[in-house]
Amino acid sequence: MDIKISMSYIDDEKFSVKNNSGNNLIVDMYAENKKEHMSPMELLLSALTTCAAVDIVSMIKKRRRDFKDIKAISSGKRVDDSPRYYKSIDIKYLIFSSDLKDNEAERFISLAISKYCSVGATIRPDTILNHCFEIIRD
Amino acid sequence: MDIKISMSYIDDEKFSVKNNSGNNLIVDMYAENKKEHMSPMELLLSALTTCAAVDIVSMIKKRRRDFKDIKAISSGKRVDDSPRYYKSIDIKYLIFSSDLKDNEAERFISLAISKYCSVGATIRPDTILNHCFEIIRD
Repeated sequence: MDIKISMSYIDDEKFSVKNNSGNNLIVDMYAENKKEHMSPMELLLSALTTCAAVDIVSMIKKRRRDFKDIKAISSGKRVDDSPRYYKSIDIKYLIFSSDLKDNEAERFISLAISKYCSVGATIRPDTILNHCFEIIRD
Repeated sequence: MDIKISMSYIDDEKFSVKNNSGNNLIVDMYAENKKEHMSPMELLLSALTTCAAVDIVSMIKKRRRDFKDIKAISSGKRVDDSPRYYKSIDIKYLIFSSDLKDNEAERFISLAISKYCSVGATIRPDTILNHCFEIIRD
């Protein structure tokens, strides 16, 4: 099934978007101190981070490991000249689990970002996708 | 400057994301009839559509053409096998203007999507980005 959205204009740097289920999102391109909503490049970074997170949680649970929480911090570096696409993206996942092993976390995150995630697979192949993680045992 | 976001877990298919300015976004991967928020692939389509729209409006105004409104309908087709990346994206812009010419609209939209937009430039080169438009004169 196709994915569909519709967009409406609010002002020159602010737009409203609606998906097929009627869920709304507002996007703005205001300067950082004036922003009220995500910008398009922040949406893209958010899409990648959350898309992979769903798969990571699913793999941890399938492996029957303890799972309490997951957080992430992501940053994207852009090329200097227009169009300023992402030359690299770094995602750090913090996974709260009493028994998840390091090599399992590494494999799950790597598979999620580079193999399973539809957003990651839609990104140009020369954008470097780096990841790291920390397992919090408490 | 790097673009940064942080992500928190709400449930296995629902995450909260915050940008550097503290603006929040919730993403869910629920089935269509249960959805409350955009999914990651909808975010990506929204990012592309709005990113290009900003540039289109800017070019119309720089050309000193009348501009009343802009809307868009976008749809993305995914490949059948996982990872289900976008094989093609179609965007139709509706531009409300009394004097914008067809060849200007075509050029502005084409430049925005294929040349200026950072999101478009971050998408894999074999994803086909189609566009069309309609100018509404009323």
